[in-house]
Formats: sequence, structure tokens, C-alpha cells
Amino acid sequence: MKFSRLFIPTTKEMPHDATLPSHQFLIRGGFIVQEGAGLYNLLPLGKMVQDNIRAIVKEELDNAGCNEVQLSMVTPYKLWEQSERSDAMGKEMLRFKDRHQNDFVLSPTNEEAMVTLVKNRAKSYKDLPINLYQINTKFRDEARPRFGLLRGREFLMKDGYSFHSNTEDMIREFNLMENTYKKIFTRLGLDFRVVQADSGAIGGDGSKEFHVLANSGEDTIVVCENCDYGANIEKIFDNDEEIDALNELSYEELQEKSLEQKCSCGGKLYFKKGIEVGHIFQLGDRYTSALNATFLDENGKTKPFIMATFGIGVSRLIAAVIEQNYDDKGCIWTKTTAPYMVDIIVSNAKKDDELNAGLKIYNELKDAGIKVIIDDRKKERFGFKMGDFELIGFPYAIIVGKKLSDGIVELVERKTGIKKDIEISKITDIVSQVFMVI
Amino acid sequence: MKFSRLFIPTTKEMPHDATLPSHQFLIRGGFIVQEGAGLYNLLPLGKMVQDNIRAIVKEELDNAGCNEVQLSMVTPYKLWEQSERSDAMGKEMLRFKDRHQNDFVLSPTNEEAMVTLVKNRAKSYKDLPINLYQINTKFRDEARPRFGLLRGREFLMKDGYSFHSNTEDMIREFNLMENTYKKIFTRLGLDFRVVQADSGAIGGDGSKEFHVLANSGEDTIVVCENCDYGANIEKIFDNDEEIDALNELSYEELQEKSLEQKCSCGGKLYFKKGIEVGHIFQLGDRYTSALNATFLDENGKTKPFIMATFGIGVSRLIAAVIEQNYDDKGCIWTKTTAPYMVDIIVSNAKKDDELNAGLKIYNELKDAGIKVIIDDRKKERFGFKMGDFELIGFPYAIIVGKKLSDGIVELVERKTGIKKDIEISKITDIVSQVFMVI
Repeated sequence: MKFSRLFIPTTKEMPHDATLPSHQFLIRGGFIVQEGAGLYNLLPLGKMVQDNIRAIVKEELDNAGCNEVQLSMVTPYKLWEQSERSDAMGKEMLRFKDRHQNDFVLSPTNEEAMVTLVKNRAKSYKDLPINLYQINTKFRDEARPRFGLLRGREFLMKDGYSFHSNTEDMIREFNLMENTYKKIFTRLGLDFRVVQADSGAIGGDGSKEFHVLANSGEDTIVVCENCDYGANIEKIFDNDEEIDALNELSYEELQEKSLEQKCSCGGKLYFKKGIEVGHIFQLGDRYTSALNATFLDENGKTKPFIMATFGIGVSRLIAAVIEQNYDDKGCIWTKTTAPYMVDIIVSNAKKDDELNAGLKIYNELKDAGIKVIIDDRKKERFGFKMGDFELIGFPYAIIVGKKLSDGIVELVERKTGIKKDIEISKITDIVSQVFMVI
Repeated sequence: MKFSRLFIPTTKEMPHDATLPSHQFLIRGGFIVQEGAGLYNLLPLGKMVQDNIRAIVKEELDNAGCNEVQLSMVTPYKLWEQSERSDAMGKEMLRFKDRHQNDFVLSPTNEEAMVTLVKNRAKSYKDLPINLYQINTKFRDEARPRFGLLRGREFLMKDGYSFHSNTEDMIREFNLMENTYKKIFTRLGLDFRVVQADSGAIGGDGSKEFHVLANSGEDTIVVCENCDYGANIEKIFDNDEEIDALNELSYEELQEKSLEQKCSCGGKLYFKKGIEVGHIFQLGDRYTSALNATFLDENGKTKPFIMATFGIGVSRLIAAVIEQNYDDKGCIWTKTTAPYMVDIIVSNAKKDDELNAGLKIYNELKDAGIKVIIDDRKKERFGFKMGDFELIGFPYAIIVGKKLSDGIVELVERKTGIKKDIEISKITDIVSQVFMVI
């Protein structure tokens, strides 16, 4: 892709309400634009990042045997009355009437709709298990939408729902999804922890959260220094006041706090801040009993489906990647989430030799299957282009400039800032090798 | 994919309100499920078809230089007041208040939001042209939602918006999009016509519609026997009563009507029924003036952007493909829209030799890059599987059954019903060749 043909309105203006790095840099880097309170539009670069995340989520879920569906975003309100959850959802669930005065909601989650979908369509234990998911827009009317994509009102969520003939099989699927989620977050290049969690308004018994570790995280979690144990503090402290007090502390303040409790493995426990990006629940028959969704078991007996549910915050992950990967200059995308892997910066695109040399490398890299963008803008100077590279956060840049007459270009790694002179004839080979290691 | 692992709840029950083949067969074939009036859920097969259509739309638009974005589905109402279009949209535009009593709409289209997005971000003629599109959920609160996906309330639409410094450049893009749309509908395997159209509520001057020819189409169009001229009758008749009367006629009745007018090429004009699947508009400065969206031209003068807009009904296309391709047994997908190209029917999956032979072909075809599903269900008989194949409408089936002991399988073409005996050792080669021709 050519920079000159892509709409990337980077800006130096800092949005006044943006306190978090991801919020600031995603707006300044031309990834997102605010449309209203908690409402964001994705610009081309933001859409690409989201597509990258979405593709990894889909691939791993499909590999694990899940089926992708798409439920209507507008859901009849009566489904929520049947599950007796409409009150518990409170004002976060946006309700409205259509032109015929019928009641609907903008789906904040889809347990009810999914149970209704499977009910009467899967009839026998032979039809089970079923694991259906969607990657679809959700709406929650947050009282105080903030932090950009981290706590918006409209957002993209992967919500999955599995149906089983018994608890044992549901737990097998729950464990399979835990492993699948680990694969997903690992492929996204994230440092994350799986923690024991409270189940909250969704209901049900076993529940685990997936947290991306970041100083700005809204949640406080406890992790072991030795083993992979982790827990949300809501799970391990009984006292609400104590929990609120801990959640108020900054990352730095938390580091000074020590925990008396030890892990069951004997290891020391630490406080960390996390951004919740995934949550899996063992639901049992909470919804299927309420909605009378049953199947015939081996003995011809009618039973409610045993259910689990699995969520990933897809648009939230865009911000979570940055909260974990940024510096004072801007974003630093991981290799699998980056909109482009390498940005060829033509120092002065008005000079034909520089532009042509850049285009030659561009075409070679494209042919090698590398996602590449060339900054071919004639009206911008080198410093401005370099600033855009750092703000946007492509993993690598190749600078075509002064040293071109010596047959040399510079390869820059965004994360470290390390620059290396490379012979122009070798750049494609070297870059291909670097990127193959991913 | 294995049939036994995919949620495909086919049914013999006919939905009581379904009068059109696409509505009947998409529900009976396990592609869609109704959630409420004009609200549909896509099941796995329906999602795959939509993904196929979406991918072709995206690929051709990206090739033509368009940039994909994603606007929030919930839009502040104030944008619609600024463009003075809120009254014209009437009750089809669903309005609601959030918890803080602020006014929003569920976007029925996004001219206002897109103009606001580009305003102040593209500042100079040097930043133009820009062509931004999204493939995103829309909502129109139709008074009488009907015909399944053809006239739903929530639907998936591709809406594109281009911004130019002058009318000439806008017309260049308009023509480019006309050609791009032709490529898209051709790749989808559809028989369609481009027709002159009225601009309706969107406003602006030049406007063309893309119609999939189908007896069930809601629109009446006129086409020339000789050249590629076509027009919506709303464009060529002045008299509203005459237009209404013609629209009331069935396809058969229309065939008996003759038109006195001749085409400018001298050719005879015919009536046809069409399903509108695309619409492109020359908007000029209708919205950019109202919303004060301007740029600086070569002489430093402030001017409103000149705009065009381009729509494709993505979820509607799922139904349009079937309205043009079905028989009394069910759907007949085109090769590029089919969820799978070939269905390997294991006649009796309880017999190990049949199942293993089927799986061997399945793996060979998969390795050859062909989208293949194997009907490995043990609880279903051959007749039932064959019925599902015909109802769902995969382009081809390979029947592994009685003739297996002679090393023979049957290749069936869904469209023609023609069956051919093929030596099992040759099936992958033959099938690969057949599908390469696409």
C-alpha cells in the first residue's frame, strides 16, 4: 500500500479527555476517531488491526471445532424477561421501542438469543456438543464511557456459547477453550495471565478471566512468582472495602503492598494490574432451564442443556496491545497485530532515484509476501515521515535516503530504535529472514 | 469440514410467512433463523455465504483503491439535524435516547457520519480523492419487513463515500465504481443489469442501480434487447399511477405488456423484474455544504468537497443469489458463493469401508485447496443426506456407496442433476479440473 493512497490523518493534537496512552496514540496515529461518548469509528489502520485480531481469533476457534454464526444485534426484549435477567442488566442494557411500539434491546451479550436459537434445533444427545460463536457488535450503555476503546459503549466482542449433555463434557470444552484462548493471546504477542474470577451478572460456577498485564489496567489481580496461579482480587478478598481500596491504588503503589497469603505451591504472591480481554464461564443450566431448552438423553429423558460461555473483547484488544507496547513516541504494534510489518520511508519522494529505489524494495517485499507500506508522500519531509512511523508504530522501517548513492538503506526496529545499514541488494533477503522468525 | 461437526439444522417445516423461494429455502436449508420481525440470525452455512460475498466485495474495492473503515452503528442524532435529513428519513430511521437522555439513531446509512469524519482531516486538494467504505450492520425500521433477507430491518450493507475536489474527478470515480460493481456481481455469478435510476431520499443527480434479474424482484425495470441500456420504470414514466400499476404486475403479466418506446439504439425495450443489490449516486455538495465540510483548492480558496456514494446490499445478495438460482428441491449456489463446493455423501457411514473411502477423498480434495464437506453422519440414511444436499445446494456431490466395491463413486452436479460414474482413483484429478475452470 502507498501512504499517499491511504487515509491516515495523524495529528499532534491530544484529545482533551484521553488520559491513557492507547487512547492518545490511537487517535493521534489515525487509527480511530471519536463519534460520540463511548462511540468510535475505525479508520483504515484501525480496521486493519482489528481484522488481524479477528482473523487470529476465528482461526483458533475454528481449529478447536467452534462454528461461527451471526446473531441480529437488535434482540426482542421478551427474551430477557424469560430469563429474568432484564432487571439485573440495569441501565447498561439499552432498550427502545420500534415504530410499532414493540420492545427491543441493543444486545449487550447473547445468552438468551443463542439458547433460543439452539432450542428445538438440537434435539438429541447425538446432536451435542455444539459450540457456536460470533464476532459481532455489542452495545452497553456505560454510565461513564472512558479510556477510548477500553471502555466504549459500542464494541466488537467474540461471544461463544457451548451446549452439552452433561457437566463433564461441558468442563472438557471449558478446558479446551482455556487452551484455545491461551493460543490466541500468545499469537497476538501479549503478556497475559489466566486468573480465577467471580462470575458476576452472567451467573454460573467456574469462571476464569484473561488479563493483559499493563500498568493502566482497571483490574487488580494477584499472581504467583513460581507457578501460573492467578486470581482477581474480587475472588480472594471477602471484604468489599478492601477490594475497592486496592483497586484505587496505582500500579506503583501496588508494588509496595505485600500479600501475607502464599500460593498453594508455596510461592510468593504479587499484585499486578490487568486489562480483562477474555472471560470464560461454566454456566450449567442457568439459562437453559429458565428458557426451557431441553434435549433427549440416552434414556429418552428430557433434560436442559448444560452450557458454558466464552467471551473475548476484540476491539478492546486493539487498545490492550498498545497499553502493553508503547513508548513516549507512540504505538509499538506486535508483529501479528501490526497493520503493516514494514514502512519504507522515502526520505525525499520528489527525488526520482529515491522514490524508484523505494518502489523497487516495496515490490520485492510485496512479492515475498510481507505486509509493506511505502511512504511516498511528496509534500512531507523526512522528519515528519519518521515521526509518523514512530507514532503509528509499524514494527520496522526501511529508510531510503542520503546513503542511497553508496547502495545503502537503513533498517530501523521501532521497539528498540536500533538502526542498521544494509546493502540495498540484500535488504529483501534480510528482511524476509527477520520476519520469518515470527 | 465434517457434517457431524457443523450445526446445520435443516427442516421440512415451511415458515408460514415465507412466500419467496429464497426465504423458504434459506430457512429450511439451515442458513438463517428468524429472531423477530425483519431480524435474522445467520447460522454457520449462512455466515459462510455472507463471508464469501463480503470477501469478493472487499477485494474488488481494495483493488480499485478504496479504504475500508468501520463507523459506529449508533450515531448521534444531531448529525441528522445538521444535514436536515431527519424528517425525510421518517420512521424508518430508528431513534432512541441513551441513559442520559441524549438522542441517537441506529444508522440506516452514513453520509452524515462519513462527511464529519473526513471534515477537518482532509484539508487540501492534495489530500483528495478519498474513497472510504465500510461493510457494516444497518437498521431500517421498515413498516412491513418481509421476504426474509430481501427486506429485513437489520442487514449488512457495503456503503462507500468518495470525496473530490471537482465534479469531473467525482464522475471519474463514479465510473470506476460502476465498473468495479460489474466485476463484483459478475464474480458472484449473477445475471444482472445496470439501470438508470431516480435518486430518492439520498439526493444528488446521476444515479444508477444494479439489479439481479429474478421473477420475484420488487422492482420493475426496462431493458433493451440489443444494447446494455436499462432503466428503472420510476425513471422513464412520469405518472405515479402508471408506475404503481406496473409494479403490481407479476413477472408473467409483465411479459405480456409491450412498450411503445424504443431504445435510443433502435432496439426493442422489455419489462423485467429486478432485485436492487447496488446503487451508486453522484451527490455533489448536497451534504458537504450542509455540514460545512470544506477543503482548500489550488488557489487557496475554500470549497465544499464534491461527493459520491456507493451502496451494495451484502446480506440481501445472499437471498438474491437464490432467487436467481433454485429449483423445486432447494438452493443452487453459484460457485463463488457456495459455502462448500462439494459434498461427499457417505451413503452408509456405519460401514467402515465407505466412511474411510469418503475420508480419503475428503483429505485429497482438501489438500488440493477445494472447499469440501463430508456427510459422515451415522444416524442419517442416504435418502436424507441426498435431500439435504439438494436443499442446501452445494454445487457438487460425490456419492460413496454401492459401487465402491467396483472402485466407482458418483459425481453429481446440483444444477443439472447429471450423475457420472468416476473411478475413485481419478476423482480428485477430475474434480480439481472441473473447479479450476471457474
